[in-house]
Amino acid sequence: MQPMHAEILSTGDEVLTGTVVDSNAAYIAGKLFETGFKVFRHTSVGDEMEQLRGVLAEIGGRADIVIVTGGLGPTVDDLTAAAAALAAGIELAEHPTARSYVEAFFEKFYRPMTESDAKQALLPTGSEPIFNPTGTAPGFRMKIGGCTCFFLPGVPFEMRRMMTESVLPFLEEHVLPKTGRQHYREKLLSLFGLPEAEVNGRLIEISKGFGDVKLGMIARFPIIDVKLTAFGDDVNRLEEQLETAAGQVMDILGDWIFSVEQEPMEAVVGKLLRERGATVALAESCTGGLIAHRLTNVSGSSDYFLFSAVTYANAAKMDLLHVLPETLEQEGAVSEQTARQMAEGARRVSGADYALATSGIAGPTGGTEEKPVGTVCIGLAGPERTHTKRIVFPFRNRMANKEIFAFAALDMLRRELLKR
Amino acid sequence: MQPMHAEILSTGDEVLTGTVVDSNAAYIAGKLFETGFKVFRHTSVGDEMEQLRGVLAEIGGRADIVIVTGGLGPTVDDLTAAAAALAAGIELAEHPTARSYVEAFFEKFYRPMTESDAKQALLPTGSEPIFNPTGTAPGFRMKIGGCTCFFLPGVPFEMRRMMTESVLPFLEEHVLPKTGRQHYREKLLSLFGLPEAEVNGRLIEISKGFGDVKLGMIARFPIIDVKLTAFGDDVNRLEEQLETAAGQVMDILGDWIFSVEQEPMEAVVGKLLRERGATVALAESCTGGLIAHRLTNVSGSSDYFLFSAVTYANAAKMDLLHVLPETLEQEGAVSEQTARQMAEGARRVSGADYALATSGIAGPTGGTEEKPVGTVCIGLAGPERTHTKRIVFPFRNRMANKEIFAFAALDMLRRELLKR
Repeated sequence: MQPMHAEILSTGDEVLTGTVVDSNAAYIAGKLFETGFKVFRHTSVGDEMEQLRGVLAEIGGRADIVIVTGGLGPTVDDLTAAAAALAAGIELAEHPTARSYVEAFFEKFYRPMTESDAKQALLPTGSEPIFNPTGTAPGFRMKIGGCTCFFLPGVPFEMRRMMTESVLPFLEEHVLPKTGRQHYREKLLSLFGLPEAEVNGRLIEISKGFGDVKLGMIARFPIIDVKLTAFGDDVNRLEEQLETAAGQVMDILGDWIFSVEQEPMEAVVGKLLRERGATVALAESCTGGLIAHRLTNVSGSSDYFLFSAVTYANAAKMDLLHVLPETLEQEGAVSEQTARQMAEGARRVSGADYALATSGIAGPTGGTEEKPVGTVCIGLAGPERTHTKRIVFPFRNRMANKEIFAFAALDMLRRELLKR
Repeated sequence: MQPMHAEILSTGDEVLTGTVVDSNAAYIAGKLFETGFKVFRHTSVGDEMEQLRGVLAEIGGRADIVIVTGGLGPTVDDLTAAAAALAAGIELAEHPTARSYVEAFFEKFYRPMTESDAKQALLPTGSEPIFNPTGTAPGFRMKIGGCTCFFLPGVPFEMRRMMTESVLPFLEEHVLPKTGRQHYREKLLSLFGLPEAEVNGRLIEISKGFGDVKLGMIARFPIIDVKLTAFGDDVNRLEEQLETAAGQVMDILGDWIFSVEQEPMEAVVGKLLRERGATVALAESCTGGLIAHRLTNVSGSSDYFLFSAVTYANAAKMDLLHVLPETLEQEGAVSEQTARQMAEGARRVSGADYALATSGIAGPTGGTEEKPVGTVCIGLAGPERTHTKRIVFPFRNRMANKEIFAFAALDMLRRELLKR
């Protein structure tokens, strides 16, 4: 059976001009996939009648369902209902239920209703209003061509409630039983440290035996997600095939994979620390507080995170962490010896079980031939030993380097904790 | 004169399924508007050959230019070049220049080039490669129907450099001179600390005298940008009206505005520190390293940023910053007295001119009736005095609180530096 052809249309100049990022579309797509619809296309157009009408007529000619957001409000540039009527070749008229929704809203908040507010009850003839519990503009449902169209406001929290309270239940009750239900399952395996092409090369052969499971890869710098997806009628079969495929990927990639549940690296490291009853301290130079920021993004991190000394200045490295002046002089601040002494100093001063230290050159300036931009030295002091690592990443961008330096350090701690 | 019909196409399952929010499209739309192109439509489709081919053929039939992102990498699901060739009815072939780009990238980083890497040099016949300075996949330019198509990678920092270094210069040089140019000008005034409705209320009356300049507001948590935009033929007139409007907004909002050049708060604070020859140290509890991370995002920050002590544990507050045990006991870690001692301790230990300290409850747990989630105490120690501030923000979300606590602290330092 062919999956239903679903689409998403976002309207509004602010989306089109790049003033806001369209997070509505991602939310709706996620919900539709979960419910068993396959989204073939997102489109965004501005607040212009002819553009709106044209794209609605196009979608009406090819999709089974579409979720449209934006342009339902009371102002001059809210044109969606009129454009929908034009696209379907019908009239706009005041809908009594929609009118009562708008009136009830203003009554509830003791605000006077103006004429432009009342405009929100004008819907294409024959359409069904959709209740908006948190805003003034009702949504509506209508057919354009062969396509069932759901029109919702663009305000994210209004749209989200109407999706979960009205649109998805309608689809579950009235659409899915007729079409038979298509199921969608996905699994993301997150890994750090291997280039995308290398991951691809290792998986390409086995992926031929994955059956209905499709192999994909998402580069979310500095992470790569191996994405396994399956779409079909038989949910047990899908899940079984997905489990088998995931198992094979894990056998091949081993501990390069740090999460199979879409957790951030800092949550994975936090969980390992908690399980082992261990604490951690940091000494950050080039990462400038980013590792501490990440670790403390996890609620409850105060149980295992003791402190970070963000020591940009050499004086701070000596005073707070007792790095030896001669090491700084002879080896430089960016050296494995300095990283070792920073880690050991942070561990001693804090009394933590583990201490992680970074020193490097994030750029864009400050590189030398011997120590180019992108160089990081990481020290990890633990109960049994201290080890260090020097890595040269190919980036010139300061933010990219801070990001990947922090990731590399956290990954080093993760691998050490896995050994215990 | 009709503006050029520009479109944007984002490809990739991760955009379509809602796994990632498409921030590329917003960036590209902003750049095209600035350059004088009007964007009529954004479209996103997944990694499926027939969908990709179909949408490229449609766009080729109606647009003058299109920027396409994604699907140029070395893996199985990177199909864009093949789909473009199909849509234009031509073949794929290895392009020698593209091949040399890919080879040069691997040579530079001493990594072996695999066969799947080499695939990235296969381009539709007759297309022109676009150099990618920060990644392996070259972009390319070609015609489909009457439309000039620019294909770029989906990785944001690669795409952005290629837009500014190759695509926009090409449009400026080869496309705009033929079509005549529509001008777009915008000015963003960034402010922190006033609610959006309050800003709107203060500006609504004067905005009626702005002429062709349109007033808008962008909420980029925790910042609000007042956005002034103008579009038209006469560039001098646009710029003059924009300057006048901006001057009036600045008169009304005064030092609530921290930047008129879209600089981040940390760059503004960094510039003030540099101009005054002053240095800064931090003592961060609830912000967990985020202030240090922000300050060190600015290249050259090592000139004025000395260190941050991220002291999550009370022991660290006492040992490193000499906060008195009795203060912690009697007033608690989250108190103006503790924030004062943390700031003074950080200033003394580091020898910095200024020290900024934060202690608060980011949540979601840990709040009490007296000190609810969202409470932050900030201390600022300077050459003349130390002052402290307690603010209660209405958020329950940990990340939102860390973000706004860090902003409030940096803003306090900014206002102090402005007085010198």
